[in-house]
Amino acid sequence: MNQLFSSIEAAPLKEDVDIVIPTIRSLDFLEQWRPFLKHYHLIIVQDGDPSINIRVPEGYDYELYNRNDINRILGPRANCISYKDGGCRCFGFMVSKKKYIYTIDDDCFVAKDPSGKEINVIAQHIKNLETPSTPHYFNTLYDPFRDGTDFVRGYPFSLREGVTTAISHGLWLNIPDYDAPTQLVKPRERNIRYVDAVMTIPKGVLYPMCGMNLAFNRELIGPAMYFGLMGEGQPISRYDDMWAGWAAKVVCDHLGFGVKTGLPYVWHSKASNPFVNLKKEHKGLHWQEEMVPFFQNLRLSKESDTAAKCYMELSKMTKEKLTEVDPYFENLADAMVAWIEAWEELNPPVDGKDVKAK
Amino acid sequence: MNQLFSSIEAAPLKEDVDIVIPTIRSLDFLEQWRPFLKHYHLIIVQDGDPSINIRVPEGYDYELYNRNDINRILGPRANCISYKDGGCRCFGFMVSKKKYIYTIDDDCFVAKDPSGKEINVIAQHIKNLETPSTPHYFNTLYDPFRDGTDFVRGYPFSLREGVTTAISHGLWLNIPDYDAPTQLVKPRERNIRYVDAVMTIPKGVLYPMCGMNLAFNRELIGPAMYFGLMGEGQPISRYDDMWAGWAAKVVCDHLGFGVKTGLPYVWHSKASNPFVNLKKEHKGLHWQEEMVPFFQNLRLSKESDTAAKCYMELSKMTKEKLTEVDPYFENLADAMVAWIEAWEELNPPVDGKDVKAK
Repeated sequence: MNQLFSSIEAAPLKEDVDIVIPTIRSLDFLEQWRPFLKHYHLIIVQDGDPSINIRVPEGYDYELYNRNDINRILGPRANCISYKDGGCRCFGFMVSKKKYIYTIDDDCFVAKDPSGKEINVIAQHIKNLETPSTPHYFNTLYDPFRDGTDFVRGYPFSLREGVTTAISHGLWLNIPDYDAPTQLVKPRERNIRYVDAVMTIPKGVLYPMCGMNLAFNRELIGPAMYFGLMGEGQPISRYDDMWAGWAAKVVCDHLGFGVKTGLPYVWHSKASNPFVNLKKEHKGLHWQEEMVPFFQNLRLSKESDTAAKCYMELSKMTKEKLTEVDPYFENLADAMVAWIEAWEELNPPVDGKDVKAK
Repeated sequence: MNQLFSSIEAAPLKEDVDIVIPTIRSLDFLEQWRPFLKHYHLIIVQDGDPSINIRVPEGYDYELYNRNDINRILGPRANCISYKDGGCRCFGFMVSKKKYIYTIDDDCFVAKDPSGKEINVIAQHIKNLETPSTPHYFNTLYDPFRDGTDFVRGYPFSLREGVTTAISHGLWLNIPDYDAPTQLVKPRERNIRYVDAVMTIPKGVLYPMCGMNLAFNRELIGPAMYFGLMGEGQPISRYDDMWAGWAAKVVCDHLGFGVKTGLPYVWHSKASNPFVNLKKEHKGLHWQEEMVPFFQNLRLSKESDTAAKCYMELSKMTKEKLTEVDPYFENLADAMVAWIEAWEELNPPVDGKDVKAK
């Protein structure tokens, strides 16, 4: 009985989770992840040259899509999926049929907690996603749904039910997720602080969502998890996850879903080249000064009561408000529409099963 | 040189900090605090029977006020200071002349960090108060002004200057700060999780501020740190710090100041009696369902550009909006006015030194 229980714990909800990995190289990093990820189905999105052979460690159950597959499956809408950019991962979100997605970068490894125990990232993300969030009021002892803690004195009882969690944003030990200027200024900074907390990002508050170690409820928020138009042929890179994070947070706030950040940690092994990054992100560093206020100030309409409808409304607003920042945003807005059309073609709404706001 | 530095570090800004302690008993708990608090001036507010002799450990520099002193100093306005309730501590905030206040309960002891080192609460609070807050956007690696961390990728550069911090809310190991119903349901729950983080509570978000382990900038926010009318003769207790916390947060948000929570921890030694607490707080448990939305929805006017002016405006709103919840709030609103009048009498604004919003 104990053994059964711990084996279930080790790979919770394995029928309900797909692991999405964007990559340009062989996936040897999965060897180390075997104890935690071997029970799950992988969706590998191969970026760059489709003729390269990606090696996947034996024993993993996976499907792999390269650029030719994306073009074949999406047809004329395929150009909404970024090329030569990690943002291509969102194609995997679209072809999955599972409730939950966990996506991880191939330079991330198993981290250890302060006791030296290896961290089961999926178990923690699932726990985060399957317990409510508390976006309307801050709990000073952090996630009240964790073992050993609760709502503190002065927390209104009417808010203790919380709301359904849609996103679980995990963190990184070792190499912190810095932009190029910060990388250049602090080349030796390493994140060695293990903060033993999960918390809800309050309603109305934006955060920089990193795609390195991220889980979400695909049924609730999948259509808003579009990683934008980045990489080859585009003026911007390294803002794929930021765009998705801002959009998905605004949609969660509107639909009444929660977003958590904190545990679990992964071990981020290597810093990317700051000079290459600077070139990729320099427009984004400038544009984020406009993009963040855009997301902070927009208000979605009552009619937008699903993530897909919210996202269509958001594409209109993007075209209206951000095109004056740069003509790029007009292309992005069109790609957002193509993304939703493709999503709905691959995920036709089942009558009565469309996920609406509460 | 090293010794000098570490002795300064051990008691930072000792000329700028008063420690305010409300008590009904002898202050033997200060023996354990000696290494950290002995350099600071104490303001002891004796609650209850003024004829009782409060013993203060030798070597401490202190002033002590009992009810007779409060009556003498404040005259007819003295009834704005709670009697037989920890909320009487705010009298100490008023008579202090220092920039910073640290207030602590007499059942709180020195806590240890996970390495076993005793935590210097004042040093951490001062660090929190002397570095900026970031209320406009969430940083996923928590306080970017701590050593070893920074703003992450996707954090707008225009927001990295941050804002001046006005409040530092510390936490508690061992006995968590639960309300009576939670105490009754979870009598054995202990907080054993040391979360190694300081973070800004975002603008527009309320939190339950506990007065057990709290520091603030008296010059910036002192007039809004009124602990209300609680205890003997009042229908409510144990909401003194909550009231102060909600009001001060709303005023900080309006004036552009920041509020941090997290480190440092104290060791909270004993749970108060849940049945006694239930009696004290049962109206508050009900009223907080109205008080929290009241604070969430109010908007202060542009003319209110100091904490004192904000608080006067808040007293009017309290009378207008909360008196329908219970006539008690009319008395509270009058007491808020008396509090500000008394504050201004004891702290006459120095021309050109009045602290205004940025």
